[in-house]
Amino acid sequence: MSSLYTFGIGVGTKNARGEWLEVYYPAPLVNLDPEMSKVMRSVFSDLGSDIEPSPEQLSSLVSALESNNFKELAGVIKTLQTTDKCIVAVLQDKNLSPKTVPQGYLKLHLLSHRLVKPHQTDISGIFGVLKNIAWTSFGAIDIEELPERMLESRLSGKPLIIDCVDKFPKMVDYVVPKGIRIADTSRVRLGAYVGEGTTVMHEGFINFNAGTEGPNMVEGRISAGVFCGSGSDIGGGASIMGTLSGGGTEVISLGRQCLLGANSGSGISLGDRCTIEAGLYVTGGTIITVLDDNKNDVRKAKARELSGQSDLLFRRNSVTGAVECLTNLSAIELNSELHS
Amino acid sequence: MSSLYTFGIGVGTKNARGEWLEVYYPAPLVNLDPEMSKVMRSVFSDLGSDIEPSPEQLSSLVSALESNNFKELAGVIKTLQTTDKCIVAVLQDKNLSPKTVPQGYLKLHLLSHRLVKPHQTDISGIFGVLKNIAWTSFGAIDIEELPERMLESRLSGKPLIIDCVDKFPKMVDYVVPKGIRIADTSRVRLGAYVGEGTTVMHEGFINFNAGTEGPNMVEGRISAGVFCGSGSDIGGGASIMGTLSGGGTEVISLGRQCLLGANSGSGISLGDRCTIEAGLYVTGGTIITVLDDNKNDVRKAKARELSGQSDLLFRRNSVTGAVECLTNLSAIELNSELHS
Amino acid sequence: MSSLYTFGIGVGTKNARGEWLEVYYPAPLVNLDPEMSKVMRSVFSDLGSDIEPSPEQLSSLVSALESNNFKELAGVIKTLQTTDKCIVAVLQDKNLSPKTVPQGYLKLHLLSHRLVKPHQTDISGIFGVLKNIAWTSFGAIDIEELPERMLESRLSGKPLIIDCVDKFPKMVDYVVPKGIRIADTSRVRLGAYVGEGTTVMHEGFINFNAGTEGPNMVEGRISAGVFCGSGSDIGGGASIMGTLSGGGTEVISLGRQCLLGANSGSGISLGDRCTIEAGLYVTGGTIITVLDDNKNDVRKAKARELSGQSDLLFRRNSVTGAVECLTNLSAIELNSELHS
Repeated sequence: MSSLYTFGIGVGTKNARGEWLEVYYPAPLVNLDPEMSKVMRSVFSDLGSDIEPSPEQLSSLVSALESNNFKELAGVIKTLQTTDKCIVAVLQDKNLSPKTVPQGYLKLHLLSHRLVKPHQTDISGIFGVLKNIAWTSFGAIDIEELPERMLESRLSGKPLIIDCVDKFPKMVDYVVPKGIRIADTSRVRLGAYVGEGTTVMHEGFINFNAGTEGPNMVEGRISAGVFCGSGSDIGGGASIMGTLSGGGTEVISLGRQCLLGANSGSGISLGDRCTIEAGLYVTGGTIITVLDDNKNDVRKAKARELSGQSDLLFRRNSVTGAVECLTNLSAIELNSELHS
Repeated sequence: MSSLYTFGIGVGTKNARGEWLEVYYPAPLVNLDPEMSKVMRSVFSDLGSDIEPSPEQLSSLVSALESNNFKELAGVIKTLQTTDKCIVAVLQDKNLSPKTVPQGYLKLHLLSHRLVKPHQTDISGIFGVLKNIAWTSFGAIDIEELPERMLESRLSGKPLIIDCVDKFPKMVDYVVPKGIRIADTSRVRLGAYVGEGTTVMHEGFINFNAGTEGPNMVEGRISAGVFCGSGSDIGGGASIMGTLSGGGTEVISLGRQCLLGANSGSGISLGDRCTIEAGLYVTGGTIITVLDDNKNDVRKAKARELSGQSDLLFRRNSVTGAVECLTNLSAIELNSELHS
Repeated sequence: MSSLYTFGIGVGTKNARGEWLEVYYPAPLVNLDPEMSKVMRSVFSDLGSDIEPSPEQLSSLVSALESNNFKELAGVIKTLQTTDKCIVAVLQDKNLSPKTVPQGYLKLHLLSHRLVKPHQTDISGIFGVLKNIAWTSFGAIDIEELPERMLESRLSGKPLIIDCVDKFPKMVDYVVPKGIRIADTSRVRLGAYVGEGTTVMHEGFINFNAGTEGPNMVEGRISAGVFCGSGSDIGGGASIMGTLSGGGTEVISLGRQCLLGANSGSGISLGDRCTIEAGLYVTGGTIITVLDDNKNDVRKAKARELSGQSDLLFRRNSVTGAVECLTNLSAIELNSELHS
């Protein structure tokens, strides 16, 4: 028997019709080792569907885990045994797209727990799987049950505060990975990969299936699918084009030690040590005047032809209005390539 | 007797001096039908001033509504009968500007319940009517009562969280209209008109008396007074100039299927199917180089002369720095007009 | 004996190891008058270190304050006497950099209580002093204690909402100074100086040791260290470069009645009555074409050479793409200087 791809056991919320709204997995796993996989298979036979474990199954799981010395996970499950809330377990033997709410949430947890990087786990179709929910001071509430709950809470004097009406909750409701700061937590969605040493300032944003290698300073917007290498700095209000809405089809990434200036933007991928000056938006179709070390115009190129190259500096010439590309840090290898 | 323009009965908060701070109307009405108007007039004689109904009035209202088969509203009022909170009813026989806090809140509710579109109801003077309030985890609190409450809550170990200090609360504290998503609810004010199928992403914003026809994707800022037609996409960080501060005097609207690129901006109205490329801000005074189908320069125009026209694409030429206007989708009718 | 520089007594939170996480000072003082200083010195002998006062010390302090007619502060301390939370007092006889969490919080309080302006109190090294904390619906929680608390709160059905994971909390958790509005309170950090009459809209942001003289409209981002004179308007999404990350080394200030247009930015200081048009980012290195009253090109200058001058209007010529500087309001003195 092959090892399991992922396992999660968590506690979640259902609506009045008994449908899952969301699930919190305190200790999800990916690429389980053979022993752990064996334990799981011994307790749960029905892979692929959501399992609402019986008290007996939970006891068996704790015993099996303890006797195999998986004490940490056993401890988590013992805590789950004490609740009257809905418990659910999800197991996948392969990396499959999510078909249910508990599966979707497990995939998003894998990303935010840094167990997989963006694009490493299959989340295709997740928009269709997740439900639009009100995230409130009373927990997750089905949109349809909201008017009644709002009136009720008003009349009882216990305010119902709604932070978010969305398919994706904020990450920190589920996990706060080690070594990060997020000044306004509403700006990072569950499913973001926030690398250690990342600071997300008030104007920063990270979508799901996107993120930073860490350490990084994020004061601009990292769209779905985008990944930024370590040391790169996304300036205040800077934009990186995604593929979901208004953007193109290329999945964008930034290498290491790049700088997107404040209010700048990129519609192309950048290699390492690239800079886009403050206020300049480089789209794939921008015609770039490429300069050599002596700042002579050597050729024109569409920005997308420069996509992914390193040591580039993009600016708009403040006298001529032309968008220019210089070699950043006067990297010789790059220059020779630009001249060819 | 003419039919009533609007009716609302709700529950609200007063400060220690007995002044209204805010009111929540679960089921506001506009342009009441004659039967409903008659019911209201039979119970409430004093139109135009805020009514704090007696228990007897509430009972009469429920009876009159039930006997006229207005069961839904009767149900809401029956729920209100159970509370010890402050109840208020507002009736207007004409569309008049708000003179009191309950009237102001009713007007804002009409907009967010999609009962009227932006500019359809008179809210002139509302800034002077509404009070600056702290919106907290304990509900609305008068600013002057705040220091004492903050200290008290600290000492009792029950944190007082303040989300907003403003005259306008966030919309979802009062209504979550059908078929929308708002990723960060603090970004949509009560009084916004959020059309069905609208998604407001984390960087999106909608002010009061402004909004979207729906469906729309909103990742930028829709200023007070601005209305966006269906299918239009406001890119991340895009700005639409309002008339309140720093902007001009023209009330701006966008037609259908427009695209404001990320970090772009508009100081003019757009017709249908217009695009402003990412990073370009078109103000009314921007001198536009108008191009024909062959990209020949046919004339110069101030952007405000193009205001409201359809099928335009605005870009900054990345070689010459000139702001250009092309015909979007090569619409022939438009081109001929541009040539004239 | 000299007068004390600052005094604060407050209530705060410690982690499980007994380390201070944060402190709330309801009534901090700066530049104490000699009588008040004498009272403090009579009760607290140990200046410079954090004092956790005994019940006897609190009683002595109340008596000494009352007998010297400092009734307001006496009243605050009497309220503090009723709590079982951790109390701490900080006294400094000189303006010294903070060495402990209670000292750091006191400095930030001085700024947000408007007792000192940005750069007037020594906060050097504060990043190293403050701890990264989760700011939650249950108050401040140590990051390391978070996973356990999150699971616990889930199982008990009382959601733990985390608003912020950062070294700096939002200002309004500690003080709401008089005469301001902040539409989204998560956007103003403790340590911001928010002058009376300032409105911070949803897209506005003010960092610590930065702020506005008031009245001001803030719809853009005021970075750490930046100060804006009265009447200046920071447009939606506008950026002011700070010195912490990605910016230069010059501490930027804006004079009075300046306007930063929407999505504009400044990397230089501005004097009074300057305007940067919507969408234009002026960095220190931007080459500016300086125009005279007849809009003739009189010279080129790097933007940083114009830093701090008054009555300038910056725009990007929409035909030539050149960044130009005109004299705003045709101020004659300025013009003559520009011609020289």
